[in-house]
Amino acid sequence: MLLYGNAVVGQSGGPTAAINATLSGVIRGALSAKDDGIIGTLFGMRNGIEGLLSEELVDLFHIFDTEEKLTTLEATPAAALGSCRKRLKAPSIDADAYEKLFDIFRRYNIRYFFYIGGNDSMDTVLKLSEYSSELDWEMRFIGVPKTIDNDLAATDHTPGFGSAAKFVATTMKEILRDVSVYKIPAVTIVEVMGRDAGWLTASAALPALSGDAPDLIYLPERSFSPEEFIEDIKEIQKTKPAVLVAVSEGIRDENGRYVGEGTDSRAVDAFGHKALSGAGRVLEALVKEKIGCKVRSVELNLPQRCASHIASLTDIGESVMIGGAAVKAALVGSTGVMMTFERENSPEYSVRIATADINGIANEIRRVPEEYINDRGNGITEAGIAYLAPLILGELSPIYENGMPRHIVI
Amino acid sequence: MLLYGNAVVGQSGGPTAAINATLSGVIRGALSAKDDGIIGTLFGMRNGIEGLLSEELVDLFHIFDTEEKLTTLEATPAAALGSCRKRLKAPSIDADAYEKLFDIFRRYNIRYFFYIGGNDSMDTVLKLSEYSSELDWEMRFIGVPKTIDNDLAATDHTPGFGSAAKFVATTMKEILRDVSVYKIPAVTIVEVMGRDAGWLTASAALPALSGDAPDLIYLPERSFSPEEFIEDIKEIQKTKPAVLVAVSEGIRDENGRYVGEGTDSRAVDAFGHKALSGAGRVLEALVKEKIGCKVRSVELNLPQRCASHIASLTDIGESVMIGGAAVKAALVGSTGVMMTFERENSPEYSVRIATADINGIANEIRRVPEEYINDRGNGITEAGIAYLAPLILGELSPIYENGMPRHIVI
Repeated sequence: MLLYGNAVVGQSGGPTAAINATLSGVIRGALSAKDDGIIGTLFGMRNGIEGLLSEELVDLFHIFDTEEKLTTLEATPAAALGSCRKRLKAPSIDADAYEKLFDIFRRYNIRYFFYIGGNDSMDTVLKLSEYSSELDWEMRFIGVPKTIDNDLAATDHTPGFGSAAKFVATTMKEILRDVSVYKIPAVTIVEVMGRDAGWLTASAALPALSGDAPDLIYLPERSFSPEEFIEDIKEIQKTKPAVLVAVSEGIRDENGRYVGEGTDSRAVDAFGHKALSGAGRVLEALVKEKIGCKVRSVELNLPQRCASHIASLTDIGESVMIGGAAVKAALVGSTGVMMTFERENSPEYSVRIATADINGIANEIRRVPEEYINDRGNGITEAGIAYLAPLILGELSPIYENGMPRHIVI
Repeated sequence: MLLYGNAVVGQSGGPTAAINATLSGVIRGALSAKDDGIIGTLFGMRNGIEGLLSEELVDLFHIFDTEEKLTTLEATPAAALGSCRKRLKAPSIDADAYEKLFDIFRRYNIRYFFYIGGNDSMDTVLKLSEYSSELDWEMRFIGVPKTIDNDLAATDHTPGFGSAAKFVATTMKEILRDVSVYKIPAVTIVEVMGRDAGWLTASAALPALSGDAPDLIYLPERSFSPEEFIEDIKEIQKTKPAVLVAVSEGIRDENGRYVGEGTDSRAVDAFGHKALSGAGRVLEALVKEKIGCKVRSVELNLPQRCASHIASLTDIGESVMIGGAAVKAALVGSTGVMMTFERENSPEYSVRIATADINGIANEIRRVPEEYINDRGNGITEAGIAYLAPLILGELSPIYENGMPRHIVI
């Protein structure tokens, strides 16, 4: 049953290299629906739901009026529309926000709502979709996942993860070259993002595909033992001088305490999540104390989520596709769903796009399964590498301007 | 006057993305001299002068027997031969080392010595060249510069700098996208390598070419005032929420004390240089205290010197060229010289390769000149950007294998 009207799209949560590719996919999908006479205008909300509440809307068909602008958008990191960290409260607590939002939807004749984000954004989609079911204003709410953490439930992987993983894998390989030049014993500890799930840290193992593995990898899925860590390093130092370690920012000891806890002055984020930092620095001090050799910690930091110049073509292509598929799903009547990837059970990697009920997704975390982590808890298995490998394939090759990748700013 | 015999090449000092490109240039140059019947074999010393002292030599003509291996070498970061931090003492202090080295030169019939490195390596070339002039074993000693710091005297710029600058410029541009997505006031401080000279930090200004400049840039060439820094940030916060700062690891206060001094447990390096870290962290704490907004520091760290995947084609091309030119210079009789770039005084960027007497280079530091820094000492002038801009042009486009750049390991 066709639903005629306008659409709105927003981006929320932390930046990734692919969140704009998904936006481009939504624009491409909506343009096609415009040609079919179903969608009139696609609005972009500035800074997610925050901008929508203050009616800061832009006309995306007007802004992205050429193919070149869309492809440049696909190679631009972070959220071109701006982002926010706002999580809608329940209607029983903040009825005003819902009344205001649905008043805007009616006034702008908005029937389609697309929200690109992580856990918190899916929660927003769920709440709006539930609230809307009681109203006489028919709407369709679709969540499109994005997170470099790859920890959303119900999907094989998340848009944005493959590009972050390609950056981590490439950088680990380059750092391995760098730290291997000297003959003196040295330990280099690379801290990778990932609060609760170790997917991105696990991707540090990918250079193993060309025989270039870092020596030790520790994920938050296993409790971290400082004693075993020092033993592991000493064991490797028997055979080679340079030891390279990848460690998740979120590793915790056997009592569940973050290893990096208390080492940094940074406060909690707007949701009360602890803004972690410092696992690498803590381990650096530990190695210095217990082993006494040269040691350095490297925090990969923001480039993990915004290094579009080394984006995975697989990731960017899939991110565009899933944005377009979100529009198609809405057109045929889906609402209250999150778009997902399902990996085909075939020798060659391929995915198909599906939808999952958003209920139950928003507060779940998908962790790295046991069979992807070795027994000792200090490395990734072949099965883990096989899962990760296809996600980083292909290079985006952005357009360079003055020696730097071209971006689009709206 | 032709000098027949073998040659040896080594790499020394900290890794760069271009030091292997220069090695490739030396191999290419020596192969050509081999065809002419002048150079018999090109030995590579493992770990620089250290490996030479223990006769750890490899046959580079044998290893690099295809064009594909040479081009892969040119796209591989860090020192493929291994590196060292050893600085030869004066012959009056360590006569043994010199006797040992010249014994090896005679036994291997080595007449040509090429050393790719920074200040300390040039000092080694100088000492060997001076020592050799007293002997009845004619040799030619050529230094080929490399450093991401761009601070060697007598050359317009150094091989390796352009690639590091391209990484810094690209990453600053991507971080600018990343930090601009939220509407809440936030300060992001990016710490860039460079102990005494601010060249690499200055390259953070290059995104200005597409209207994307970071807001504030502080180099070690000017004394750093914490009060002015806070004033600068407050001034920018009047017009926009996200402030992006680039700061050199080597900034010092008006008394010459490193801002980052004392904040890190890392010791001095093998030469007694202080291994700096922490200027970014110190400023992060300062902003938190004086302004109280969200603040984050990012240390670009090792990827600055090994991110070959975003190497500058100009840099890599020039690095190959200068390696080949070193061989040619030696063949026609140069010794005790460092290879240099001279920039042509023409509207289009072009360089020619020359040589400079190594005496006086080894202990000099070439700093960013006054006219490249703005009056307030918090930004780069148009003249500075004009100097830097051509050095980052062009993309190397390495061969990708399993989604990561292919490297060669010897």
